[in-house]
Amino acid sequence: MYTIVLLRHGESTWNKENRFTGWTDVDLSEKGRTEAERAARLITEAGLSFDLCYTSMLRRAIRTLWIVLDHMDLMYLPVEHSWRLNERHYGALQGLDKRETTEKFGKDQVLLWRRGYAVRPPALPADDARHPRFDPRYAGLGAEAQPATESLADTLARVVPYWEGTIAPSIKSGRKVIIAAHGNSIRALVKYLDHVPDDVITEVNIPTGFPLVYELDDNLRPVRHYYLGDQKEIEQATASVANQAGTGK
Amino acid sequence: MYTIVLLRHGESTWNKENRFTGWTDVDLSEKGRTEAERAARLITEAGLSFDLCYTSMLRRAIRTLWIVLDHMDLMYLPVEHSWRLNERHYGALQGLDKRETTEKFGKDQVLLWRRGYAVRPPALPADDARHPRFDPRYAGLGAEAQPATESLADTLARVVPYWEGTIAPSIKSGRKVIIAAHGNSIRALVKYLDHVPDDVITEVNIPTGFPLVYELDDNLRPVRHYYLGDQKEIEQATASVANQAGTGK
Repeated sequence: MYTIVLLRHGESTWNKENRFTGWTDVDLSEKGRTEAERAARLITEAGLSFDLCYTSMLRRAIRTLWIVLDHMDLMYLPVEHSWRLNERHYGALQGLDKRETTEKFGKDQVLLWRRGYAVRPPALPADDARHPRFDPRYAGLGAEAQPATESLADTLARVVPYWEGTIAPSIKSGRKVIIAAHGNSIRALVKYLDHVPDDVITEVNIPTGFPLVYELDDNLRPVRHYYLGDQKEIEQATASVANQAGTGK
Repeated sequence: MYTIVLLRHGESTWNKENRFTGWTDVDLSEKGRTEAERAARLITEAGLSFDLCYTSMLRRAIRTLWIVLDHMDLMYLPVEHSWRLNERHYGALQGLDKRETTEKFGKDQVLLWRRGYAVRPPALPADDARHPRFDPRYAGLGAEAQPATESLADTLARVVPYWEGTIAPSIKSGRKVIIAAHGNSIRALVKYLDHVPDDVITEVNIPTGFPLVYELDDNLRPVRHYYLGDQKEIEQATASVANQAGTGK
């Protein structure tokens, strides 16, 4: 039996401004930093600890992890960064205000982009300065792995090999693992672990900054999962994520 | 030809209080954080960057590195932590005020402890709660590698295998390396790289928070080294480190 923690980063400046973020490397807001501190407290109060950390290449997830490690007196732990844990790439929508996007493209189109499991937003043009191929941190990936847009299905397709090839073997070797990541990379893991159907997973919302505990059996099949924290606050945070685009769901 | 950066952490709360610190895990002071920000600026202005980081298990070095990575927009870089880069273990002197120690034990004894290359301060008793064997981060080391006190010679003896086995091969593979560490682990590296005699190295003082650049030839032999920053400030900072115990040197 293994226990792991999945943690979506705290509120970012663009969560706060209600923009599509994707691979844009925005930082935590002040509230996001406070959420990360709360996560550390909740994990400690639950009697959990770690000896290995996984996170993305994006500073809002890394900062969240750093705050947690700092408050748990675990700054010395090994941390592995992978683009495979990055947020879903939101293509040309990155930077746009979510409600404005709804007004411009219509509720149905935005719902499709946000909730269609295999639907990709419009891609970033290859010469757009924000394309991952211009970012040194993704230079090692090769063109195939540098997305200009992604569906949730695409995100899952790059998260799962990292789980299977890297994270799962570490868990089985007895390492106590935390994964500090993003709404859609965590959603992908949840879908994979719990066999959530395509049309259901897009309605599963991951609140920022609440530790999501998974208890796994010897074969890493989930026995149960639950959030740490005040259940009412978690419900409110989840509902607020769900309705960010003002589409009513 | 390779270029690496050695960086002693910024001022810690115990540097400020003039206490022997060693493996005590104290944090940076406010001034120390500012020094780390300055280091990031100096490194950037010198046109240097990194793709791999080494640091110790102690938060003052890790925090310094984190501040540098944050300000250089490199938070996603891989970081390796090793106890081999820790500060020299200062035994039972840890926590004592340096000037009080001089008054109590005499200038000659304190000079021997601080400047005698192979002289160890009194050891921490094995049942002292501060002994590394009680700290989970050192649990993997085995009793042999958990020091209760160290001379600079002892520190060098555990730093050099890490350089030879881990850091040097990375540099030779073309990785651009920063080592964020401590006064005595950096001193040990300097002695090793530049073949500094035993009685000279103990007079070499490493100021906090100024990046020390080493240019190395293809065989990692030093071609030259220099600090980044204002030379007068560096001299003052170096002199202040030298006279911390009030022994006049």
